[in-house]
Amino acid sequence: MTKVAFIGLGVMGYPMAGHLAQAGFDVRVYNRTRSKADNWCDQFGGNSFKTPRQAAEDADVVLLCVGNDDDVRSVTIGEQGVLASMKEQSVLVDHTTASASLAEELADAANRVNVGFLDAPVSGGQAGAEQGQLTIMMGGDETSYQRVKPVLDSYAKHSQLLGPVGSGQLAKMMNQICIAGIVQGLSEALNFGQASGLDCEAVVEVIRHGAAQSWQMENRYKTMLQGEYDFGFAVDWMRKDLNIALQQAAQTGVSLPVTALVDQFYSDVQAMGGGRWDTSSLLARLNK
Amino acid sequence: MTKVAFIGLGVMGYPMAGHLAQAGFDVRVYNRTRSKADNWCDQFGGNSFKTPRQAAEDADVVLLCVGNDDDVRSVTIGEQGVLASMKEQSVLVDHTTASASLAEELADAANRVNVGFLDAPVSGGQAGAEQGQLTIMMGGDETSYQRVKPVLDSYAKHSQLLGPVGSGQLAKMMNQICIAGIVQGLSEALNFGQASGLDCEAVVEVIRHGAAQSWQMENRYKTMLQGEYDFGFAVDWMRKDLNIALQQAAQTGVSLPVTALVDQFYSDVQAMGGGRWDTSSLLARLNK
Amino acid sequence: MTKVAFIGLGVMGYPMAGHLAQAGFDVRVYNRTRSKADNWCDQFGGNSFKTPRQAAEDADVVLLCVGNDDDVRSVTIGEQGVLASMKEQSVLVDHTTASASLAEELADAANRVNVGFLDAPVSGGQAGAEQGQLTIMMGGDETSYQRVKPVLDSYAKHSQLLGPVGSGQLAKMMNQICIAGIVQGLSEALNFGQASGLDCEAVVEVIRHGAAQSWQMENRYKTMLQGEYDFGFAVDWMRKDLNIALQQAAQTGVSLPVTALVDQFYSDVQAMGGGRWDTSSLLARLNK
Amino acid sequence: MTKVAFIGLGVMGYPMAGHLAQAGFDVRVYNRTRSKADNWCDQFGGNSFKTPRQAAEDADVVLLCVGNDDDVRSVTIGEQGVLASMKEQSVLVDHTTASASLAEELADAANRVNVGFLDAPVSGGQAGAEQGQLTIMMGGDETSYQRVKPVLDSYAKHSQLLGPVGSGQLAKMMNQICIAGIVQGLSEALNFGQASGLDCEAVVEVIRHGAAQSWQMENRYKTMLQGEYDFGFAVDWMRKDLNIALQQAAQTGVSLPVTALVDQFYSDVQAMGGGRWDTSSLLARLNK
Ligand SMILES: NC(=O)C1=CN([C@@H]2O[C@H](COP(=O)(O)OP(=O)(O)OC[C@H]3O[C@@H](n4cnc5c(N)ncnc54)[C@H](OP(=O)(O)O)[C@@H]3O)[C@@H](O)[C@H]2O)C=CC1
Ligand SMILES: NC(=O)C1=CN([C@@H]2O[C@H](COP(=O)(O)OP(=O)(O)OC[C@H]3O[C@@H](n4cnc5c(N)ncnc54)[C@H](OP(=O)(O)O)[C@@H]3O)[C@@H](O)[C@H]2O)C=CC1
Ligand SMILES: NC(=O)C1=CN([C@@H]2O[C@H](COP(=O)(O)OP(=O)(O)OC[C@H]3O[C@@H](n4cnc5c(N)ncnc54)[C@H](OP(=O)(O)O)[C@@H]3O)[C@@H](O)[C@H]2O)C=CC1
Repeated sequence: MTKVAFIGLGVMGYPMAGHLAQAGFDVRVYNRTRSKADNWCDQFGGNSFKTPRQAAEDADVVLLCVGNDDDVRSVTIGEQGVLASMKEQSVLVDHTTASASLAEELADAANRVNVGFLDAPVSGGQAGAEQGQLTIMMGGDETSYQRVKPVLDSYAKHSQLLGPVGSGQLAKMMNQICIAGIVQGLSEALNFGQASGLDCEAVVEVIRHGAAQSWQMENRYKTMLQGEYDFGFAVDWMRKDLNIALQQAAQTGVSLPVTALVDQFYSDVQAMGGGRWDTSSLLARLNK
Repeated sequence: MTKVAFIGLGVMGYPMAGHLAQAGFDVRVYNRTRSKADNWCDQFGGNSFKTPRQAAEDADVVLLCVGNDDDVRSVTIGEQGVLASMKEQSVLVDHTTASASLAEELADAANRVNVGFLDAPVSGGQAGAEQGQLTIMMGGDETSYQRVKPVLDSYAKHSQLLGPVGSGQLAKMMNQICIAGIVQGLSEALNFGQASGLDCEAVVEVIRHGAAQSWQMENRYKTMLQGEYDFGFAVDWMRKDLNIALQQAAQTGVSLPVTALVDQFYSDVQAMGGGRWDTSSLLARLNK
Repeated sequence: MTKVAFIGLGVMGYPMAGHLAQAGFDVRVYNRTRSKADNWCDQFGGNSFKTPRQAAEDADVVLLCVGNDDDVRSVTIGEQGVLASMKEQSVLVDHTTASASLAEELADAANRVNVGFLDAPVSGGQAGAEQGQLTIMMGGDETSYQRVKPVLDSYAKHSQLLGPVGSGQLAKMMNQICIAGIVQGLSEALNFGQASGLDCEAVVEVIRHGAAQSWQMENRYKTMLQGEYDFGFAVDWMRKDLNIALQQAAQTGVSLPVTALVDQFYSDVQAMGGGRWDTSSLLARLNK
Repeated sequence: MTKVAFIGLGVMGYPMAGHLAQAGFDVRVYNRTRSKADNWCDQFGGNSFKTPRQAAEDADVVLLCVGNDDDVRSVTIGEQGVLASMKEQSVLVDHTTASASLAEELADAANRVNVGFLDAPVSGGQAGAEQGQLTIMMGGDETSYQRVKPVLDSYAKHSQLLGPVGSGQLAKMMNQICIAGIVQGLSEALNFGQASGLDCEAVVEVIRHGAAQSWQMENRYKTMLQGEYDFGFAVDWMRKDLNIALQQAAQTGVSLPVTALVDQFYSDVQAMGGGRWDTSSLLARLNK
C-alpha cells in the first residue's frame, strides 16, 4: 500500500489529508501546531509526527500545503525537513501557492537526493478541499506525475501537468491575475449600479448570460450586494499571490498594470480590517 | 396586425429588422444610406421610406438602432424625426447604446405627444442579432413593455424591464464596466503566460473551470492567443460605451478607476489601428 | 482711449476687470448675476450692462472669463451674445479654461463678423488674478495678439502666443496634466511618510532641493500636512479641466493613463464633500 | 587624523571616496572588482584592501555605497564583512538606497559590537557625487551623526538626521514616490503636446513658472523632447527603489496606486531596452 505523508494541516491541508485517509492510504501527518495534528488523527486515524523529517520517512509520496516560500523551506530543507529523510524514487508534491523560483530550488534539492518533485498549487478554495473537488495545476516530469496521480485523485476533480517544474505556479499566477481584473471590474459595476439606484440583483440576472459573465459574478454578486465578506479566499492570501506574480513579471520583463493597481486597492481593504475577507471585498472599498 | 418601423439598418439593425419581417410583422424601414434599406427590402420584402418620420407614420411600435446620442436625436427629434409622426399610444424603443440622460430626454419628448418610450440597449453582438438571440435590458413603464414584448421576442432570447426610464442604459453600462476589467485581467494573464513560455491553451483549459473563469476567457482565449481580432465588438464602440459610463459616473459621483484606465489602454489599441478590432485586443497592446 | 468689455465677474474675472479699470481703461462689464456687476461698478467705477451684447457694443477688446464651454457659448453666440454687437477689427479674448474645439468654433464665428479671436486661458489662480500676476497661454494670430497685449498687461506677469487658435487651451491642458501626476505622487509620498511616523516637514525641507521638487511641494506641503484644503484651485474646476484634456486626447488619439486615474481619484474627493477643496486634497483621500 | 574606509567604488562611491581623499582624510577602500580600487588609488593615493573587513580595520568611520540589500549584507555581515573588524565607537554609514528593515538589521548587528550605525541614502545623482553636492537623508542617533558629519561634509551640500534608524531610507522612498508621479504626469503632458502639434518647448517655457513646475520639468524637458535618455538616473535603479517603497508600504499598510502603476510602466521601458535610460524615459514609452 502507498504510504503518504502530509505536511501542513491548515484550512486546506486538513481536509485534503482527510480525503487521503478516507481513500485508504496510510497517512502520516505533521503540523507545526501539534494540537491540529492530534485532532486530525482523532478524526481520521493516521499517525502524527514531531518533525516533517519523521513524517516523511518511508513515505512514497510527501505532500505539503503550508503558507509561503519561507514556510515551505522550513519544512523541506535543513536537518528536520522532509528531504532529509525521503527515500529514493519517492515524490515530493508542493500544494502551497509559492514562487516559480522556489519550485526550481526544491526540484534541485530533491534531485540531489534522487527524489521527484512537482509544484502543484490548487484552486477551488476551502469548499473544494472539503469536498475533494480541487483543481491542481502542476509542473514537473511525467514520471513523477503518473506516480502521484492516484494519490491526488483523492481530492482533485482535475489535475494536470502543464510543463516543466514551475509551470504549476506560473499557471496559478495567471489564475490570480485574471481574478484581480475580474473582481475590480465587477466591483466598479456593482458600486456604480448601487449608486444609480438600480436593482443590481435584477441587472446581474440579465447580464450574467452574456459577455460580462464570470465565475465571480455568478458566485459572489449576492454576497457582495449584501456586504458579506466573511468567508472565501482571504485578501491577505490574495496579496501574497499577487506579489508572487508581480515579482515573477519583473523577472520575466512583463508589465501587469491593472494587477499592480488592484493589489494596491487590496491594501486599502486590509487597512479597513479586511485582511481575512473574501477577495470580492473590493466592493466594500468602493462602498466606503 | 401590428405595424412596426425600424430605423437604422446597420450591423445590428439589419438582421433585427429581418427577424421582425420573418415573424410576420408589417415592417417599414428607414436607413440614412438608402442603398442598405433597398437591399433590406429586396431580401425581406418590407417598405423603405425617405425619412424617419415617414417610416414611423402609422406604426404601433418604432424601433431604433443607430450609433450614439446625437445620431438618435437626429432620427427622433425635429421635423423629420419619428416623434413628428408617431401616433398616440404607440411606443418608441431605442436599441442604441446611449446615455441615460438621452433616455430621459426622449421619454419626455415622447410623453409630450402621448407616445410611450423604452430605452432598450442590447447585448449579444452581431451573432446574437443574426440568430435572433439578443439580450435586451430595458428601462420604462410596464404598460409600454407589455405592448412591445411580442415584437421584441422576434430577436431576443431574453428581455427584461429593469426599472424606470434610463435603467436599460445603466444596466448596459454595468455590463461594459465588467467587461473592461475582465478583458484587461485576462490579457495581462495571457501576456504573462506567453512571456513565461507556458502552454497557455493548456493552462486556460484548466483554470476555466474555477474562480478565474469568464465568458471572455471561454469565448476569446483561442483567438487572443492567435492574435486574431478582426471580428466581434469593436474597440471604437467600446470606447463610446465606456465614455458614456464614465460621464454617468461623474454625474452620479462614483469612481471607476480601472474602467478609466482600461479606456486609456483602448486608446493605445486605436493608435495601433485597432479601432475595429474586438475588445479582446487589449492583449495585442501588451504583446507589442 | 481703448474701450474694453469684461464678461464674467467671478473669482477670476472680478479682480481682472478691476486691474483694467485701475490701469485707466474704459471698462464695461456684464455679469449674469447682476449684483456682482453692481458691486464691481461701486468699487471700480465702470459701467454695467444688462446683456453681453450691450456690454460689448463699441468695445475694442472684449474679454471673457466664465465657467465652461456652454457658458462661453451663452455669452458669445446668439442674439444677446457679444458677437452680435462687436465692431469690425475688434478682438475677442476668452480667458475661460475651455476646449480647443470651442476655440475653433468661436474663431470661426468671430471671423464671419470680421472680429479677431484669441483663446487665452490663465494660470496663477485667484491670488494671481488679485495681484495682477497671471500667466496667459494664448492661441490665435499675431495681429490680434499685438492689439490686445497692452490690455492684458494690466493683469499678466507673462502672456505668450503659442500658436494658432486652440494652442492656448492645449497648453493649459498640458499644465493640468502635469499637475495631476505631481499632486498624486506628492500625496502618496506624504501619506506614506505620515503612516511611517516620519517627520514629513523635515523630510520635505530636505527633498525639496532635489529631483523630487515641484511647485506643488513647495507651496502646498504645509497645508497638506495640516489637512487644510479650504482654499486654492477647486477640485470641481480641476475635473472640468481634466475632462477637457481627456476628451481632447481621445480625439487626438493619445493615451493619458495616470491623468484618467487621478481624475477618478478626484471623484472620491468630491464624494468626501471636497468639490471646492484645493487640488492638493488628493492627500485627504489617502488619509481617510 | 580621522581614518575612513569606503566600500563600493561605483558610479557614486568612486567620486565620493575621492572627495574624502581630497579633503585630507586617510582613506582605505575596498571594491569587489579589484581593478576599480587600483584605479582609484592611482588617482587619489589611498590604500586598497582585499576584503571589506581589512579595509574597515582601524577606521573611525566606514562608509558603504553598493547595490541593494543583499549587496550590503555581503560586505557588512559574515566573516569578511566590515562589522567583523570595526573597532568600538566607530560608525558605519550606509549610503546605499536600501530597505528600512535592512537598516534596522544592520543597526542591531552594529550595536552588538558597539558600533554606531546610520542609514544615509543620497540624492543628487552622478553629477552630485562628482561635484561633492549630494543631499544626504539620514536615520540614526545624534551622537553618531555628529561624529560623521565632518566626514560627510566632504561631498554633501546638505545632510540631515531625520529620525531613528530607517528614517533616511524612508525619506528616500518618499523622494522616489514623488518622482514617479511627476515624471509620468510630465510625460503624458509632453506626449499630448507633441501629438497635438504644439511647440512644446515654448509651452514649457511658459508653464514652468506656475503650478505645473517641477525639477524634472526644468531639468529634463529638453532632453525628453529630443528623445535623449542616455544619461541620468537609470530605470533599473528606479525600479529597485520603487519596489523597496512598495514592499515598505505593504508592511506599513499604505496604498501607493500611482507609484505601483508607474513601476509597471517602467517595466515597459525596460522591455524597450531602456533599463539604463534616465527615469524621464517614460516619455519614450508613450511616444512608441
Ligand atoms: N484557503 C484557500 O482558499 C486557498 C489557499 N491556497 C494556498 O494554500 C496554502 C495554505 O493555505 P491555507 O490552508 O488556507 O492556510 P492556513 O493558514 O490555514 O494553514 C497554513 C498551514 O501551514 C502551516 N505553516 C505555515 N507556516 C509554517 C512554517 N513556517 N513551518 C511549518 N508549518 C507552517 C500552518 O501550521 P500551523 O497550524 O502551525 O499554523 C498550517 O498548517 C497557501 O499557500 C494558500 O495561498 C490555495 C487555494 C485556496
Ligand atoms: N455591433 C455590435 O456588436 C453591437 C452594437 N451595439 C450598439 O448598437 C448600436 C448600433 O451598432 P451597429 O449596428 O454595430 O452600428 P453600425 O455602424 O453598423 O450601424 C449604425 C446604423 O445607424 C445609422 N446611423 C448612424 N448615425 C446616424 C445618423 N446621424 N442619422 C441616421 N442614421 C444614422 C447608420 O446609417 P448608415 O447606414 O447611413 O451609416 C446605420 O444604419 C450602437 O449604439 C452600438 O453601440 C450594441 C451591442 C452590440
Ligand atoms: N479659480 C481659479 O483659481 C482659476 C480658474 N480658472 C478658470 O477660469 C474660469 C472662471 O473661474 P472662476 O472665476 O474661478 O469661476 P466663478 O465660478 O467664480 O465665476 C464664473 C463666472 O462666470 C459666470 N458664468 C458662468 N456661467 C455663465 C453663463 N452660462 N452665462 C453667463 N455667465 C456665466 C458667472 O456668473 P454668475 O456670477 O452669475 O454666476 C461668474 O461671473 C473657469 O473656466 C476656471 O476653470 C483658471 C485658472 C485659475
